[in-house]
Amino acid sequence: MKKLLVIGAGRSTSSLIQYLLFNAEIENWFITVADQSKELAMEAINSHTKAKAIAFDVNNEEERKRLIDENDIIISMLPAHMHISVAKDCVKYKKHMVTASYVSNEMKALNKEAEAAGIIIMNEIGVDPGIDHLSAMRVIDEIKDSGAELHAFETFTGGLVAPESDNNPWNYKFTWNPRNVVLAGQGTAKFIQEGQYKYIPYHKLFRRTEVMEIDGYGKFEGYANRDSLSYLKIYDLEGIPTMYRGTLRRPGYCRAWDVFVQLGATDDSYIMDGSEEMTHRQFINSFLAYNQTDSVELKFKHYLNIPQDEPELFNKFEWLGIFEHTKIGLKNATPAQILQHILEKKWKLDKEDKDMIVMWHRFRFKLNGEDKEIHSSMVVKGDDQKYTAMAKTVGLPVAIATKMILNGTISTPGVHIPISKEIYTPILNELENYGINFIEKEVDPSFY
Amino acid sequence: MKKLLVIGAGRSTSSLIQYLLFNAEIENWFITVADQSKELAMEAINSHTKAKAIAFDVNNEEERKRLIDENDIIISMLPAHMHISVAKDCVKYKKHMVTASYVSNEMKALNKEAEAAGIIIMNEIGVDPGIDHLSAMRVIDEIKDSGAELHAFETFTGGLVAPESDNNPWNYKFTWNPRNVVLAGQGTAKFIQEGQYKYIPYHKLFRRTEVMEIDGYGKFEGYANRDSLSYLKIYDLEGIPTMYRGTLRRPGYCRAWDVFVQLGATDDSYIMDGSEEMTHRQFINSFLAYNQTDSVELKFKHYLNIPQDEPELFNKFEWLGIFEHTKIGLKNATPAQILQHILEKKWKLDKEDKDMIVMWHRFRFKLNGEDKEIHSSMVVKGDDQKYTAMAKTVGLPVAIATKMILNGTISTPGVHIPISKEIYTPILNELENYGINFIEKEVDPSFY
Repeated sequence: MKKLLVIGAGRSTSSLIQYLLFNAEIENWFITVADQSKELAMEAINSHTKAKAIAFDVNNEEERKRLIDENDIIISMLPAHMHISVAKDCVKYKKHMVTASYVSNEMKALNKEAEAAGIIIMNEIGVDPGIDHLSAMRVIDEIKDSGAELHAFETFTGGLVAPESDNNPWNYKFTWNPRNVVLAGQGTAKFIQEGQYKYIPYHKLFRRTEVMEIDGYGKFEGYANRDSLSYLKIYDLEGIPTMYRGTLRRPGYCRAWDVFVQLGATDDSYIMDGSEEMTHRQFINSFLAYNQTDSVELKFKHYLNIPQDEPELFNKFEWLGIFEHTKIGLKNATPAQILQHILEKKWKLDKEDKDMIVMWHRFRFKLNGEDKEIHSSMVVKGDDQKYTAMAKTVGLPVAIATKMILNGTISTPGVHIPISKEIYTPILNELENYGINFIEKEVDPSFY
Repeated sequence: MKKLLVIGAGRSTSSLIQYLLFNAEIENWFITVADQSKELAMEAINSHTKAKAIAFDVNNEEERKRLIDENDIIISMLPAHMHISVAKDCVKYKKHMVTASYVSNEMKALNKEAEAAGIIIMNEIGVDPGIDHLSAMRVIDEIKDSGAELHAFETFTGGLVAPESDNNPWNYKFTWNPRNVVLAGQGTAKFIQEGQYKYIPYHKLFRRTEVMEIDGYGKFEGYANRDSLSYLKIYDLEGIPTMYRGTLRRPGYCRAWDVFVQLGATDDSYIMDGSEEMTHRQFINSFLAYNQTDSVELKFKHYLNIPQDEPELFNKFEWLGIFEHTKIGLKNATPAQILQHILEKKWKLDKEDKDMIVMWHRFRFKLNGEDKEIHSSMVVKGDDQKYTAMAKTVGLPVAIATKMILNGTISTPGVHIPISKEIYTPILNELENYGINFIEKEVDPSFY
């Protein structure tokens, strides 16, 4: 019998644990779910006979070591910065490890030790990072194998609300960590286009978007992620003229979000005086110049070039209630914290709402002197608010990779991310059973 | 005989040292000028019989202590962060000290010790901070003494090029540290207007300017400094509805400078790939979206809303040479460093050019139920590139304060800034002898 330890039983682990429990009998697994909250862990295993739930504090070194030593593979669903202590114990006790997080430099540095210990530490095997690697590398390898020359690779992912639950003027709800959404894009976006490095400062990011369409799901818009360039090396694409990574929203979102950026309302670097007693309206007004006669609404429209006679844009803000005399009630808050607070009242999921994960890749290449273009897209919807699209697309690749490590399909020791054919082919194949699949289509090449 | 030590003989000390040497005989002073470069110190004292020049390293503790102990008053013209070690020695050896820099928290914390030692540590007695305090407090006290209620205080200072040397389309040249000019305003400007806190993010700062006119010198525009609020307490103005501090430029400068802000060209947070081999044109192009057919100039105009048919704005950029195929030649440079490099070629002072310091205050108040408004302005021009307006306005208040401490006019021990009547009246009076004077005029109150 193989013993599996899942650390963390939070929102993103439902589909992961469901998969493990479902396969426990047939694979002869015993699953321990460990969480700070024993209740949460209990709920997760749902009285399954091949599983147990325990209360666990990852910072309790003795307990951590004992628990890791007792199991054959450790699945860490902890916040990213907490993986490293688990990883070091995995090296020590020669146990495999799987995480859905970006591989940190500290984690990378364990490669030699992991090789020596004969263990696999598989990282970035969630959705983004994760399914993006698997699906992109499959097409990139196909293109390279055909003898074609890849000219451009663009890739976008978005966590959105499913169309049937999409009933607000922003076409957006918080389906994941709201703070990350409010702070998204701060810094400078960097990518390469037609061989030229391009830089977009934060205050222009949401006005330099790209629009794409996915059959059956309509249009989306994408804005650039902060760093597209680090993937050149990882994907062995050094020298490619165009490489762009981005985030998807529904069209119109970015133009409207940019209004908050222009105001300075997403700033997280200073505390606003009197934030507790301030109203929504005063919050917005504090970014607008004083004017004795103009209303906050009028100043807002003038300052941000929001046309009076095209109400669609302005309605988004009115719907959010940002002009209302509602007290904020947050002590010593930054603009970003206040904005998040206001948005959370309106962008929360209703009980029956479903989320949706969308991924879209574009590949442009030359084959036998001819320009070609392939689009590859994935849309996954949540079943409900437990088995969300996020939980499925993060958890199932983790679960499948775990199975493949245990049954020897993945066997090369070391610290890895899933970019080789031996890994992506079986995982993508199995993901199809769960409705996680990519639709590839060749289109007439489009040019800039 | 009193012994004076001047630490630092850089650009801003010419008028200071000139004043001290001129008064040495009559006041019975002996002046030691200490600088890292003995040559620079020698040049500064110009073979004066009541002065000597020495090579000096402020980090040499033993030498520093010995030198401070040998003198009666220490004038530190070092960079701001270097004052504190001098100040601590001044406390230890019971010597007075004068600086033109903002008083740091560490410096403030020496107050009790300075009082106990019976010494005066006078800070912020240059131009800004310095003359701004002196001149503002004089009017504020007059208004308060008249029984009026001060409603608004706005104050602006600018280091500019003198009208007779103003011959470029930006109406600006570097008369001081270019790096500070390129990075000016980064962060969030914070002020209070009609009782409401107002915040301006950096990417909006240069489009929310105010225009003012000074008789005989024409129009200026001002943008907000980062923190106007800390002065409320210092000037004993807590509860005043409007308090605004800003920086002056000639009209048109801010609109054009904002173009660099919008591009992201003033960003100092990342290094640009290939900066050494990059041309001016490629630098600008890296902030513009790729386009197969449009020129860099056309993309620049479209992206930044620069009208084709109003050439004044675009000409500023063309004149700077930012579209030229000139190699930058700076290794591992940030956008801000590259921009500074490009600007320095064009904004440098010609040999005969003179600089100019402009200060402008606006006071609005109610006297016997009547709204009143006073403008107070100062314009100082440099004599040449040694006795610049900057050197005069920084150095002369320092020198006069030094004299007043030595002759007992300023006598209260402790760590001070010059905001009391006992200090500002005699200093402002003597500054008039050097052409540094304020013209006050009452105007019809203007409202927002």
